[in-house]
Amino acid sequence: MGKVLVIGCGGVAGVAIQKCAQNDAVFDEICIASRTVSKCDALKEKLEGKTKAKITTAQVDADNVPELVELIKKVQPDVVLNLALPYQDLTIMDACLETGVHYVDTANYEPEDTAKFEYKWQWAYREKYEKAGITALLGSGFDPGVTSVFSAYALKHYFDEINYIDILDCNGGDHGYPFATNFNPEINIREVSAKGSYWEDGHWVETEPMEIKREYDFPEVGKKDMYLLHHEEIESLALNIPGIKRIRFFMTFGQSYLTHLKCLENVGMTSIEPIMYEGKEIVPLQFLKAVLPDPSTLGPRTKGKTNIGCIFIGKKDGKEKKLYIYNTCDHQECYKEVGSQAVAYTTGVPAMIGAMLVMNGTWQKPGVFNMEEFDPDPFMDALNKWGLPWKICENPELVD
Amino acid sequence: MGKVLVIGCGGVAGVAIQKCAQNDAVFDEICIASRTVSKCDALKEKLEGKTKAKITTAQVDADNVPELVELIKKVQPDVVLNLALPYQDLTIMDACLETGVHYVDTANYEPEDTAKFEYKWQWAYREKYEKAGITALLGSGFDPGVTSVFSAYALKHYFDEINYIDILDCNGGDHGYPFATNFNPEINIREVSAKGSYWEDGHWVETEPMEIKREYDFPEVGKKDMYLLHHEEIESLALNIPGIKRIRFFMTFGQSYLTHLKCLENVGMTSIEPIMYEGKEIVPLQFLKAVLPDPSTLGPRTKGKTNIGCIFIGKKDGKEKKLYIYNTCDHQECYKEVGSQAVAYTTGVPAMIGAMLVMNGTWQKPGVFNMEEFDPDPFMDALNKWGLPWKICENPELVD
Repeated sequence: MGKVLVIGCGGVAGVAIQKCAQNDAVFDEICIASRTVSKCDALKEKLEGKTKAKITTAQVDADNVPELVELIKKVQPDVVLNLALPYQDLTIMDACLETGVHYVDTANYEPEDTAKFEYKWQWAYREKYEKAGITALLGSGFDPGVTSVFSAYALKHYFDEINYIDILDCNGGDHGYPFATNFNPEINIREVSAKGSYWEDGHWVETEPMEIKREYDFPEVGKKDMYLLHHEEIESLALNIPGIKRIRFFMTFGQSYLTHLKCLENVGMTSIEPIMYEGKEIVPLQFLKAVLPDPSTLGPRTKGKTNIGCIFIGKKDGKEKKLYIYNTCDHQECYKEVGSQAVAYTTGVPAMIGAMLVMNGTWQKPGVFNMEEFDPDPFMDALNKWGLPWKICENPELVD
Repeated sequence: MGKVLVIGCGGVAGVAIQKCAQNDAVFDEICIASRTVSKCDALKEKLEGKTKAKITTAQVDADNVPELVELIKKVQPDVVLNLALPYQDLTIMDACLETGVHYVDTANYEPEDTAKFEYKWQWAYREKYEKAGITALLGSGFDPGVTSVFSAYALKHYFDEINYIDILDCNGGDHGYPFATNFNPEINIREVSAKGSYWEDGHWVETEPMEIKREYDFPEVGKKDMYLLHHEEIESLALNIPGIKRIRFFMTFGQSYLTHLKCLENVGMTSIEPIMYEGKEIVPLQFLKAVLPDPSTLGPRTKGKTNIGCIFIGKKDGKEKKLYIYNTCDHQECYKEVGSQAVAYTTGVPAMIGAMLVMNGTWQKPGVFNMEEFDPDPFMDALNKWGLPWKICENPELVD
């Protein structure tokens, strides 16, 4: 039994908080804090009468360490679950350090001005967290997060060594619009226009944006085109999985989605440089967001499933072995349960589980850790229990 | 020698006025009138010292008949050359009728709320113009305009009867942008999203938008994809060319252009319904125009040629005969001469020629007429003289 302080109240936080409320045998108190307290209050109201957990709300500016420290001191949580913006990881880690409270997040820190997905800023807190005797659990979403737990689980139970990991993230959902984004189109565009990279033989190999394309026949979804991207969990898995030779990350994008994005980029509609329009500065990307369907309205219309998982190739008892561990998640069922589609659901559920395991001591260890550094079994059990059951497939179709 | 009143001062008018000024043996006085008199004054200044023609300017609202009548009475032109918006054809025709002055335009009237390209509104003035003893010459641009003169010329000199006409409008110019429009994107979108139609065996045949696609190897341009569209000159040619069985109109569009237009349409950026943005109504299409390159800046960067012409199949002395008459026009040369690229140039030059022939009596006849109803020879000579020389090709490649 314990108390969680959740910072942030967006789509993923909404799912995580509802799952904490469902799990009221563990979370007997939940404090929801964000810049916009009315969003927290609305969620509290929605949960009223549906949970035995006590729910409180608070206003906080997550960029402001003293304000965070004051809030943590007042709430006295057992764990802080950071679901604010990635730009705010370090301020929240600082506040946890100052107050001696465990820390969990889902996405690694990135400076606001440069989109650099790297762990170095957060890993720099290792010694401080060790000395303070508190745990920081980094990246407890799906990818990163569950993908690392799958890797640790495969290593523990199926392999003596893992040599190849392909992480496949497939969204087979269809919202019925010719084009719409699940979240900020700016982040979509960064993903698509950034160089890709993968880990091979001890170093990074960089690719041109969207250079490496493969087709894969996803269980329960079907054939989809997918593209190699850089992704943050590769960095820690490369260090923590013995015998690893190559790690790649692929994400599915439909041709129509990519074509629309490219055209919008070509005409300047994705630019973040303001233009003068009738005497007023307007950022084209902001105007585009206003024209596009509001991501929050996609939930009820999105049909189909996500499939996220890892394909492992390695050795067991001297023989080559192949294994595929994945979860499929149905957009409509997620929407029925928590009012969000599967993209938010698959991140929010592991966030709750990470907070639970740190809070109840199962995953406590002074320092800063990535997901694959803990015993995967309790996390894997919790995934089955809390809405993200996984499957294991031996001898799966491989990616070239 | 005579006086022309040009109404309008956009891209096409700019070319027509410069060509009138070059042709100062015929036009000894040019009055330029538009809603924005500063544009007229700027053009007047540009021409100062380069022509013997006297140039004056005036402010006029072309929607307002009494204002137009007052202007015409004051200026006392021999001919009014209407290069304002197509919505304004009827008010200007009314004013010419009231003042007894000849009328020339380049594009048929369309009601502002429905994009219906039909001559019926202007043909309804036939009797009134006849009684008033004045000439209205409709559609003295390139297409419509020169394409009809080509048809009359082919009939007069090469055929006993013409059975098939394919009008081919190719813009082989490249401005170096992934996407930009030569003029109002709204009109581009209407063209592409409207149903197509052609004339066959005495009636219209309607097609789905962009349903009929052909490739053609244009002289001096090369192979281009072209699409069947409705176009206004088909309506009058179907009545005025004896023996005609089929008339089609094709325009070239690049795949990239069409893809961009479709994507912008799909996301709602071409909508003319305002959306609320930061407390203010903004029309997405208007904002898109502000983001796209200004069409007036395309001139200096556009390279390549246009090729517009007609392929005729008919009979001469009982034998089948095929003929292709076309003009090619170089964007860069046009820009050097008049500061506009070929799209405005190919419309502005025939406008000047039409005004000249009506003014000097060569093409005078009381009533309302389309281009093919007059003797084509003086117009064809003038095209060669004033910058749009044409070529005749026997046995050309045909369109399926």
